[in-house]
Amino acid sequence: MNQVFAEVLTIGDEILYGQITDTNSQWIGEELSKIGVNIIRKTSVGDDKAQILKAFQEAESRASIILTTGGLGPTKDDITKNTFAEYFGVGMSMRQEVLENIKELFKQRGRELTQLNEMQALVPENGEVVMNLVGTAPGMWFEKNGKVFVSMPGVPHEMKKMMTDTILPKIQKKFKTPHIYHKSVKTIGIAESKLAKTIEAWEDALPSHIKLAYLPRLGQVRLRLTCIGENLDALKAEAEELVQKLKPLIGEYIFAYEDEEIEVTVGKILKERAETLAVAESCTGGMVANLITNVAGCSAYFMGGVVAYSNEVKINQLGVKKETLDAHGAVSEQTAMEMAEGVRKRLNTTYGIATTGIAGPDGGTPTKPVGTIWIGFSSEKETIAKQLNLTKDRLINIQLTYSAVMNLLRKRILGEEWINNYIPKEKQ
Amino acid sequence: MNQVFAEVLTIGDEILYGQITDTNSQWIGEELSKIGVNIIRKTSVGDDKAQILKAFQEAESRASIILTTGGLGPTKDDITKNTFAEYFGVGMSMRQEVLENIKELFKQRGRELTQLNEMQALVPENGEVVMNLVGTAPGMWFEKNGKVFVSMPGVPHEMKKMMTDTILPKIQKKFKTPHIYHKSVKTIGIAESKLAKTIEAWEDALPSHIKLAYLPRLGQVRLRLTCIGENLDALKAEAEELVQKLKPLIGEYIFAYEDEEIEVTVGKILKERAETLAVAESCTGGMVANLITNVAGCSAYFMGGVVAYSNEVKINQLGVKKETLDAHGAVSEQTAMEMAEGVRKRLNTTYGIATTGIAGPDGGTPTKPVGTIWIGFSSEKETIAKQLNLTKDRLINIQLTYSAVMNLLRKRILGEEWINNYIPKEKQ
Repeated sequence: MNQVFAEVLTIGDEILYGQITDTNSQWIGEELSKIGVNIIRKTSVGDDKAQILKAFQEAESRASIILTTGGLGPTKDDITKNTFAEYFGVGMSMRQEVLENIKELFKQRGRELTQLNEMQALVPENGEVVMNLVGTAPGMWFEKNGKVFVSMPGVPHEMKKMMTDTILPKIQKKFKTPHIYHKSVKTIGIAESKLAKTIEAWEDALPSHIKLAYLPRLGQVRLRLTCIGENLDALKAEAEELVQKLKPLIGEYIFAYEDEEIEVTVGKILKERAETLAVAESCTGGMVANLITNVAGCSAYFMGGVVAYSNEVKINQLGVKKETLDAHGAVSEQTAMEMAEGVRKRLNTTYGIATTGIAGPDGGTPTKPVGTIWIGFSSEKETIAKQLNLTKDRLINIQLTYSAVMNLLRKRILGEEWINNYIPKEKQ
Repeated sequence: MNQVFAEVLTIGDEILYGQITDTNSQWIGEELSKIGVNIIRKTSVGDDKAQILKAFQEAESRASIILTTGGLGPTKDDITKNTFAEYFGVGMSMRQEVLENIKELFKQRGRELTQLNEMQALVPENGEVVMNLVGTAPGMWFEKNGKVFVSMPGVPHEMKKMMTDTILPKIQKKFKTPHIYHKSVKTIGIAESKLAKTIEAWEDALPSHIKLAYLPRLGQVRLRLTCIGENLDALKAEAEELVQKLKPLIGEYIFAYEDEEIEVTVGKILKERAETLAVAESCTGGMVANLITNVAGCSAYFMGGVVAYSNEVKINQLGVKKETLDAHGAVSEQTAMEMAEGVRKRLNTTYGIATTGIAGPDGGTPTKPVGTIWIGFSSEKETIAKQLNLTKDRLINIQLTYSAVMNLLRKRILGEEWINNYIPKEKQ
C-alpha cells in the first residue's frame, strides 16, 4: 500500500504569540489520518517571508502534501499568497470567478467593495483556485514535481468547508490512499485503567491492521478503532465483529457507537419515548441544563430546571424540606433526593435529576471535604441518590458530576436489567 | 536591547493525529512573549526518534531557547528523555531527589510503585532537574554552547507550574530579556470596528515601543498594550497615562483594566454592595448561571436561577402570565420583563436578569426570525427589556446573549449617569 506523508503549516503571528488557539492543525490532522495520510510534522511560523519560504522548503523535503492555513487576508500583514508566488517563481493573475464571488459576498452583506478586497482575487499563476463560498479569500492548490501544496484561509469554518468539499477528495484521488475505516465506541462511568484491564485480552488479539486508541475525557472514554486495508466493506464487517465481542465485556458502560455526546444519546431516548426531563442543580450551577440545551431540538423533551445555589431557593423553588437541610445539610443523600423529586413534580416531567456538592476550592469540612458530591434521580417509580468522591479542582468536579448524573439518568431510564442485556441501537 | 529567540517543540503522536488539542504551545507562546522573548517557530513531531533529533537540530540552528513538552511518560512510546541523551551524547543517571518525589506521590495516591515508574527518575547526565511536585515526570534544563533546551511534561497543569515557578524566571535571569509590561483594557457592548474607529487617533499616536492588539470574543473586545523598554516603572506610568486618555473616548464600554471575565467584575460589584442576583433563562438554557457559578465564592451573591424552556415552567416557576404569553409570545419584551421580575421576586434577590429568544437553527418565523432575542433586567426600582437581533448560529447566539445580558446588568446596577462619569477601580 502507498504510504503518503503530509505536513501542516499554520501561518500567523497570532498563533506564535498565543493570541489564538490553533485548532486548525488539530482538525486537519484528524481528517488526514481518517483518509490514511501520515502526518509527520506540524509547524507554525509568523507572517514573515523568510521564515515561510524556509518552512516550505523543509516541508517539501519531507512530505508529499503540504497543507497551509492563514495569511490570506486583505491587509498588508498577510503575505502567504505572494510568498507562494516567489517560492514557485511565478507572477500573479486576476481570477474572474473569484472576483465575482467576492463582489457577490459584499453585495449580500451590504458592504462596499474596496480595492484591497478586489486584490484578493489575485492568485499565483500556477495555482488552481479552490473556491471559498463562505469568505473572500480563495484557496489554492499547487503541484510541483508530483508534490502538492495547498493554501487555505485561517478562518476555521472557511478552511473546513474547503477541506471537506474539495481538498480531501482531491488528495484521495491523486494519492490513492488506502481505505481507512473508523469506528467509535463511547463509554461512560468506567475509568480508563479499569477499561483497559477489562478488554486487555480483546485488545491483544487485534490484528495488526487495526489500531485502538483510548480517548479519555472527564468521566468518559471513547475507544476508537482505526482499520486500514484495501477493501472498505471487509473493514467495516471486521470492525463490526470486533465491537460485538466488546459488548459482553463492557456493554453496560457503552452509550454510543458513533462519536456522539451523552446529552444527544439521552435526548434521543427521551424523544423516542415522548418522555420529559427537568434538572435541579446546585454544585453544577446550570451546566447540566446548558449542555442539554446546546442540542438543537431539545425543547421536545427538556422542560427546564432550577439552579438552586442557596438553601432558600432549594426550599422555595424545589420544595426541599427545611428539616432535611437542618438535619443532613445541603450536601446529603436526602437533599439530593428531594431536589430530584421536587424538580420533577414542580416542572411536571417524567424524570428529574439533581446535583448538590462541594465543588471547591472552599467550603469543605472534615466530614464533607471538597469533592463530596451527591447526585439524584427521580421518576414516578423511584427516587434515589448516589455519592461521588471527586477531586480538589472545582471545574474538574463540575465536569465529572455532569458525566455521572447523565450516566445515572441513562441507566435508570433504560433499567438495570435491560442495560445489561441490551445492545444499543447502532447508526444505520 | 537583547533580542532573544525561542522555539516551542511539542512531542507526541496524539498531537499530530489531532487526538488532542495542543494548548501547551499557545500558553507557552503567550508567556514567553510577556517576558520579551520572540517566538520564531512552533513545531509538533510524533514519538519518533529520528524526527525528534532532526527537530532539535533545526531548532538549535535558529533559536537560543528550545522548549519541549511531551514524551516523558513511563511507557515505551515515550522516548523524549533518551533522545535528549543521544542528542547530547551522554548517558543517563538516577536522581535521588526525583525518586523520592515519585515515591511520595505514589504513597499519597495509595498506589503501588512499579519499576517503570522508578525509571522516571533517570535523567540525562548533563540535565539539571526541574522538580515536578504535581506529577512523576521531572522537567529538565540543558545548556549547550550558550543555548538552552528545556524538557517538560505534556500534562498542561504540570508544565504550567514548572514554567511559572522555575523556567520563566531562569530564562529572564540568563538572557536578560527586556522589560515587558502588558496592560489590558476589556470592553463589552461595542463592535471591534466601531471601537477601532473611535480610538483611531489615540492608536495612531502610540509610540513605537508600545503595541496595541485587539483580541475580540463574542460581544467583547480586549485591548492589550504591550510596552517594551529598559525601565519597568516608566513603562507602567506610560501605559497608565495612555489608558487615562482612553476613558473619555470609550469609558462606558470598559469593564475591567486587567484580564478578568465579566462575571468576575459583576460579582465583585455585587459582593462589595452585599446585593444578590437571580437569573431566568430560556434561550441561554443555563449558560448564564453556569458561567456565574464557575467563579469560586459566587455563593455570596448568586442565589440561583430558573431555566424555563417550556411555557409551563415560565408560568409556574416564574409567574409569567398566561395572557402575556398568549398575546405577545414567549419571545417578547413583556415576557422578558416578567421573567426578570418573576425570578427576582421568587428568589428574593436584589436583581433579576432574563433571556428569551430564538437561538436557532429552527423555530424562526417571518416576524421573529432566528436570532431574535430579548434580554430583561429587574430591580425594585425598574424592570426593563432590550431586543437583540443576532445571527443564524445557535451557539454564537447563546454566547452573544450572555455578553449582552451581563452588560445590561452591569450598566443598570452602576447606573447610566454614573457609568458615563465613572472611572472603574483598578487593581492596586
